[in-house]
Amino acid sequence: MEKDRFSEWFDEVLFKARILDTRYPVKGFSVYRDWGVRILRYLARMVEEELERDGHIPVLFPVVIPEDLFRKESEHLKGFEGEVFWITRGGKTELPRKLILRPTSETAMYPIFAYWIRSHADLPLKVHQTVTIYRYETKATRPLYRMREFVWNEAHTAHRTWEEAEEQVRKAVEMYKRILDRVGVSYLLVKRPEFDKFAGAVYSLAFDAWNPDGKVNQVGTVHNLGENFSRVFEITYEDVGGVHRYVVQTCYGIGLSRLMAAIIAQHGDDHGLVLPPEVAPVQVVVVPIPYKGLEEPVKEHSRRVYETLRDAGIRVYIDEEEKTRPGEKFYRWEAMGVPVRAEVGPKDVESDAVTLVRRDTFERVQVPLGDVVDRVRTLFSELMENIRKRSWEELRRRTVNAESVEDVARGLKEAKICRVCWCGRLECVERIKEKTGGEVRGMLYEVEERAWRPCVVCGSEAKQVVYIARAY
Amino acid sequence: MEKDRFSEWFDEVLFKARILDTRYPVKGFSVYRDWGVRILRYLARMVEEELERDGHIPVLFPVVIPEDLFRKESEHLKGFEGEVFWITRGGKTELPRKLILRPTSETAMYPIFAYWIRSHADLPLKVHQTVTIYRYETKATRPLYRMREFVWNEAHTAHRTWEEAEEQVRKAVEMYKRILDRVGVSYLLVKRPEFDKFAGAVYSLAFDAWNPDGKVNQVGTVHNLGENFSRVFEITYEDVGGVHRYVVQTCYGIGLSRLMAAIIAQHGDDHGLVLPPEVAPVQVVVVPIPYKGLEEPVKEHSRRVYETLRDAGIRVYIDEEEKTRPGEKFYRWEAMGVPVRAEVGPKDVESDAVTLVRRDTFERVQVPLGDVVDRVRTLFSELMENIRKRSWEELRRRTVNAESVEDVARGLKEAKICRVCWCGRLECVERIKEKTGGEVRGMLYEVEERAWRPCVVCGSEAKQVVYIARAY
Repeated sequence: MEKDRFSEWFDEVLFKARILDTRYPVKGFSVYRDWGVRILRYLARMVEEELERDGHIPVLFPVVIPEDLFRKESEHLKGFEGEVFWITRGGKTELPRKLILRPTSETAMYPIFAYWIRSHADLPLKVHQTVTIYRYETKATRPLYRMREFVWNEAHTAHRTWEEAEEQVRKAVEMYKRILDRVGVSYLLVKRPEFDKFAGAVYSLAFDAWNPDGKVNQVGTVHNLGENFSRVFEITYEDVGGVHRYVVQTCYGIGLSRLMAAIIAQHGDDHGLVLPPEVAPVQVVVVPIPYKGLEEPVKEHSRRVYETLRDAGIRVYIDEEEKTRPGEKFYRWEAMGVPVRAEVGPKDVESDAVTLVRRDTFERVQVPLGDVVDRVRTLFSELMENIRKRSWEELRRRTVNAESVEDVARGLKEAKICRVCWCGRLECVERIKEKTGGEVRGMLYEVEERAWRPCVVCGSEAKQVVYIARAY
Repeated sequence: MEKDRFSEWFDEVLFKARILDTRYPVKGFSVYRDWGVRILRYLARMVEEELERDGHIPVLFPVVIPEDLFRKESEHLKGFEGEVFWITRGGKTELPRKLILRPTSETAMYPIFAYWIRSHADLPLKVHQTVTIYRYETKATRPLYRMREFVWNEAHTAHRTWEEAEEQVRKAVEMYKRILDRVGVSYLLVKRPEFDKFAGAVYSLAFDAWNPDGKVNQVGTVHNLGENFSRVFEITYEDVGGVHRYVVQTCYGIGLSRLMAAIIAQHGDDHGLVLPPEVAPVQVVVVPIPYKGLEEPVKEHSRRVYETLRDAGIRVYIDEEEKTRPGEKFYRWEAMGVPVRAEVGPKDVESDAVTLVRRDTFERVQVPLGDVVDRVRTLFSELMENIRKRSWEELRRRTVNAESVEDVARGLKEAKICRVCWCGRLECVERIKEKTGGEVRGMLYEVEERAWRPCVVCGSEAKQVVYIARAY
């Protein structure tokens, strides 16, 4: 597996690490295999934990949305109409009222919000759900990155005031940052340009993770919806004093399929996956290395190592398959991204120790059995710190200033993200797209960057510093 | 809430305990609210834990199945054709190849099984997934019991021989029994009559839970599929010696929505839900009972109770809302089914104790704070034992022998399940259905019952003892 040839490498990793089987015979739909499902589970729990700590309650809305609700908010409709799946028949009957598969759940949830919200005492309302969503992508699909069915978590909130909604946007950003940080994924956090915001939003923020092939991967988005939906779905509350007002809303989504793609792509290497311990289905694999005549003591000692780790609550697996050589086992578990390997050979038996090997650096260290739990935990945090740091450094290395359209073209060709000055006009965006294939992803959120020269395309006065990349 | 008027009681419980909001504007689709979602989560984990302990690996297959695959197995097609949702359009394009929403996943999974299974070393293959499924029900829908979208877990296995498949059927039955036992749900375990087996199966077993209104609720089914699907989907393996053989398959599903309905319906009472501790989102609620001038000590002591339970890993909530009276809080948490209430009043403060109240019997007992964790755990198992026993007794009480069609009619009218002798002919089944509304659910599995008189309908020689009930 050569990560330099990213596209093939990625497909090979998906297959070898049992993440996905891409042979399902419908374009854009794949089968998640056991390793993939387990990673998704840990990611989902992580996200749900963060959201529920901030008072979001779990809900589960239907996958179908009736046509009339879907058509209510005109901007939203315009944005999604071209890419929804339509259910038109049930059994042998034409449905009198057609249904779409949710591409996102605003139009499913908000009519019900109107029932749930009566007075200011019902606010804020914060809900979330982890579900599959459906988009009839017309662009090329790509496993995990761009599929017609993918797994995400979406949160939706309603507030009394614009100030509270703004505050929730900031909280959502902090939650998503913590989640990405827990798996060491680095990203550009940008405010999307006006022409590329979520259909129906006042403004949109996005987390664009870098990718080895240069095409950024939008893993999460946060939107301030203002009163755009509450006016259409008539979500009002009675404020103190009896006045009826529209709620102010936000929503945000984090793609679990895409986050898994980012983890694979940013941390993986020529040996395969490198998994953050928190989402690794197996955190430590114990591999006995028997020598002729010493099979039994090695086996027994391996079991002790296994039990010690298991009893400490670490997800550990002991690979006792007898027909496979240790070298092959190393190879297999490295491909699966298991963070730490615990080798047990005759020398480890002799000194009541175990040899630990880190997945990220392959550093080996022999430690006494009595210390193994602590040492493994330390290795987990060292590994995590290292891959997180490595990922951020890589993002910095990949982000370059560009001062002409040719610069941008060259940058993108080298899989870079280009930082440019922009006048703010659509014509210039279109020209960049046409000449380079790159998209204006937006300007940094939270950090104010001053234009340092004229617009990269037209040379007139620049208003903003924006980032350009090809994108999934 | 009067449980005697079951239908209204059930709707009220769903609403008051925040299980479901039935106002979603598409027939057969409802919104799961926080309490419902949380219970579903614990149920799902319980099921997944049992299955994974038996070596089932988690997978996640697409929700869409292309028409050509769906049409492959003719019996299966016949059984489901009338009740699937059809996706015929993507964006503004008619799909050249129509898709159905999975009503169950055989025809999605088995073409992929054909890739996964090559040799006997790949067997047995056992997978499972917790997903939503879709059926365009033409009968009346009913929240949780019969919906067009519901949550279930389905497992699918492939084996070398018929013996191994039979053995897996037995294991599946044991697993489902353990799951139902863990939540105290009682059931008839029957072999479905030939005319009512799963479309494509060799035979089907089913767990029919009793319901207060007399209509049994099929919570789980286990099917031996034999080679019916493997021949159609060409799932073969190379056996030792190089011979190619068809795999022998089983599949089984447990409805999590329906299991939740059974828990609510079998255990609930006039106060609302009674939840098995293992699936209760909150297992203990601490309610401070402040007296004038003693607010602070009561509050502090309540917190100590809360922290003691929390630190022991019990899911505990402290209800410190100041505007609500303790009585109202009792009422609310009883409706939610929280297994144990911990009241803290001035007398508890004085004696460093806490008063525990069981949800099922409302028995009160004051216990020293130092014993609270143990005592709560004991109460959990006593409550569990009690509601499980109560439920089985109720099932026995509801199962009566019937010796004529009039007997059956009377029995069903009284919400009973009727045990009858049957000649085995379809005409008699149809006559019962027509005269009483009852369905032949099948004969007991594992227990051999001898016919003790002639057929309940036609009076000719009876071949089997079967159970008749109305059904959801």
